[in-house]
Amino acid sequence: QIDGDRLWDALMEMAKIGPGIAGGNNRQTLTDEDGEGRKLFQSWAEAAGMAMGVDSMGNMFFRREGADPDALPVYVGSHLDTQPTGGKYDGVLGVLGALEIVRTLNDLNIRTKHPIVVTNWTNEEGTRFAPAMLASGVFAGVHEEDWAKARVDAKGKKFGDELARIGWQGDEPVGARKMHAFFELHIEQGPILEDEGIDIGVVTHGQGLYWLQVTLTGKESHTGSTPMPKRRNAGLGMARVTELVHETAMDYQPNAVGAVGHMEVYPNSRNIIPGRCVFTIDIRSPSLETLEEMRERIEDGIDTIVEAMDIAAEVEIVGHFDPVTFDAGCVKAVRDAAERLGLSHTNIVSGAGHDACWINRVAPTAMVMCPCVDGLSHNEAEEITRDWARNGANVLMHAVVETAGV
Amino acid sequence: QIDGDRLWDALMEMAKIGPGIAGGNNRQTLTDEDGEGRKLFQSWAEAAGMAMGVDSMGNMFFRREGADPDALPVYVGSHLDTQPTGGKYDGVLGVLGALEIVRTLNDLNIRTKHPIVVTNWTNEEGTRFAPAMLASGVFAGVHEEDWAKARVDAKGKKFGDELARIGWQGDEPVGARKMHAFFELHIEQGPILEDEGIDIGVVTHGQGLYWLQVTLTGKESHTGSTPMPKRRNAGLGMARVTELVHETAMDYQPNAVGAVGHMEVYPNSRNIIPGRCVFTIDIRSPSLETLEEMRERIEDGIDTIVEAMDIAAEVEIVGHFDPVTFDAGCVKAVRDAAERLGLSHTNIVSGAGHDACWINRVAPTAMVMCPCVDGLSHNEAEEITRDWARNGANVLMHAVVETAGV
Ligand SMILES: NC(=O)NCCC(=O)O
Ligand SMILES: NC(=O)NCCC(=O)O
Repeated sequence: QIDGDRLWDALMEMAKIGPGIAGGNNRQTLTDEDGEGRKLFQSWAEAAGMAMGVDSMGNMFFRREGADPDALPVYVGSHLDTQPTGGKYDGVLGVLGALEIVRTLNDLNIRTKHPIVVTNWTNEEGTRFAPAMLASGVFAGVHEEDWAKARVDAKGKKFGDELARIGWQGDEPVGARKMHAFFELHIEQGPILEDEGIDIGVVTHGQGLYWLQVTLTGKESHTGSTPMPKRRNAGLGMARVTELVHETAMDYQPNAVGAVGHMEVYPNSRNIIPGRCVFTIDIRSPSLETLEEMRERIEDGIDTIVEAMDIAAEVEIVGHFDPVTFDAGCVKAVRDAAERLGLSHTNIVSGAGHDACWINRVAPTAMVMCPCVDGLSHNEAEEITRDWARNGANVLMHAVVETAGV
Repeated sequence: QIDGDRLWDALMEMAKIGPGIAGGNNRQTLTDEDGEGRKLFQSWAEAAGMAMGVDSMGNMFFRREGADPDALPVYVGSHLDTQPTGGKYDGVLGVLGALEIVRTLNDLNIRTKHPIVVTNWTNEEGTRFAPAMLASGVFAGVHEEDWAKARVDAKGKKFGDELARIGWQGDEPVGARKMHAFFELHIEQGPILEDEGIDIGVVTHGQGLYWLQVTLTGKESHTGSTPMPKRRNAGLGMARVTELVHETAMDYQPNAVGAVGHMEVYPNSRNIIPGRCVFTIDIRSPSLETLEEMRERIEDGIDTIVEAMDIAAEVEIVGHFDPVTFDAGCVKAVRDAAERLGLSHTNIVSGAGHDACWINRVAPTAMVMCPCVDGLSHNEAEEITRDWARNGANVLMHAVVETAGV
């Protein structure tokens, strides 16, 4: 059994770095606050006797030696970066839960056969630099490192420059590490577990996703003196595409979701017809077929909308992953751990993307989920109970130790 | 006849201050660039022998003495501030056209009976600080000065503080000046004159307007893991209201227009359902009845939309003026001037709001319009020909001199 209070204290301590404005956090990737959070995590991990490695994407790895130092390590972790208006647990629970495992094994003087490596992946959230799960994606060979480092934020700053600026560009080559397995604990970010009163989600699958960044170009003109038929209103086009995305997702739900969360309007003046809009469509489904159908329908719909309005559209894929099936063996290790601990559990599909989704391509991988209040995440009011955190970390520990051998 | 080349040179010289990125201007009100533009205008006006007065809203007045110094002056002018992506003529032509009148009268040694006062009104555009025509509105007694000075821009800066900062807060009480008449020359900002090949628009009426600033409050949550029926998507609500505004305007056009030009989304992250949106609806009509009907229909429609989506709406009027009927005598002076100069002309309704619309409440007022290419305004590509500028300024001069007496 892990120490639930110690885990909770660590969560609350980390939440002091990059506080939000409503009780949550704004510790976006590669900001000064991210750097501070990393340092705190490093100090804790080193105090727990682990040695640090950092790769050139800023991914952090802390190794606890195993009885067989030649055995491939079992990796366990998540991410410390947050949304601009994020919660205290999204990602953080998975990193500090992994740290808590090692602290517990230290207390109990347990040596696993395989080494254990506690991990913090860079830029999971994808808000500042799209796509999400950028650095685990490079690790898994999905993205080129050069491409990833050239990603820019809304202010035009490059990922690579910001990583160097905060001093967390390591010298390890990305993806060189081989894993025996990877486990990630995460809050559900949806309402199922809480609604059904279940302690643990055994994550069998993850939804696939497209992020389609759309640029609509119309013509700036006066809102008062431009006759209605002469308008080429990019803002109205964005409104229509937003509705189209919603309608499409509604037609496929509960097997799909869709929304537009990011919208920019130029020049954004009350009395100028918007001449240009940039926004990102987020569509997801656990079925690849559905995901592709939705994308096609939305892309066709955009063509129809812009043709009727005499505006132009460019669509760029700025994020994509296929639906994921996690490793049967690792999933079983999670289910068995919940069973052994006497916790109620159910199979669950992750609605969100996670670093585990990419790592699953290069190592046997599974995820543990615990409930969160009202299913709320990506909101400063995101909340979990101490019990949920403890249960999740306990299942994580048992699955890891089972897989690492004693 | 005014000197068309001198007028054009002045326009091009002023356009060098606060250049845009696509050939136009970004000289928004109360910026450093606005201050610079005012200084240049002051130097020209003083060189033309006029004495400056500035009121506490930053409105600038340059007086050319009349033969009867006790006679009320004829005022003539417009505004030097621009949109963030504005043109070189919107407003500027009216100020520098007025200056050109005085330069011409000086050249010809003509003394009018009534003094002439050349005017630059502060914050006509209303982009940085809503509403538009703010300082002429205070002058006309429509707004309280304290209220106007407390208006904030998107960064939270106050109008009053910014006016003091650029050094153009004068000590004259606002609205104390009495006018014999007011004339404003402006580009049409719409396509009618050019389409019909007509030199001069004799502005008989101006459209009324509402700016309705809407705040929709939903709930931030995860785009991937929040089930569709649980979403309270403020961004989708904004999209629906944007469509509603368009549909409403389409039902009343050509007797009305409507659009949303200003939209802000919070927290504006690709994977967060928008929890809050702030945007401004712009609706206009020359008919007060139509304008009020549109507003009612839109406000009712917003209620219906937000109720169905379980989100909340707040609607604030941040700009409003009733349709305007300009003074018959002044309108006749404009028409007679065009006639006398042998220029083709037609009665026209101003689609945009103008300082003249407010001044019309405190003095006999009329406007002269000249065509602009493709009816395009509030766009850096806004363009006019030298002939159009010269014709407009000539009509302005004849109307002013006729009204001021020789
Ligand atoms: N877990 C999580 O919120 N990840 C961010 C990437 C996504 O949008 O799914
Ligand atoms: N003329 C002009 O563009 N005025 C700005 C106020 C408005 O939106 O009509």
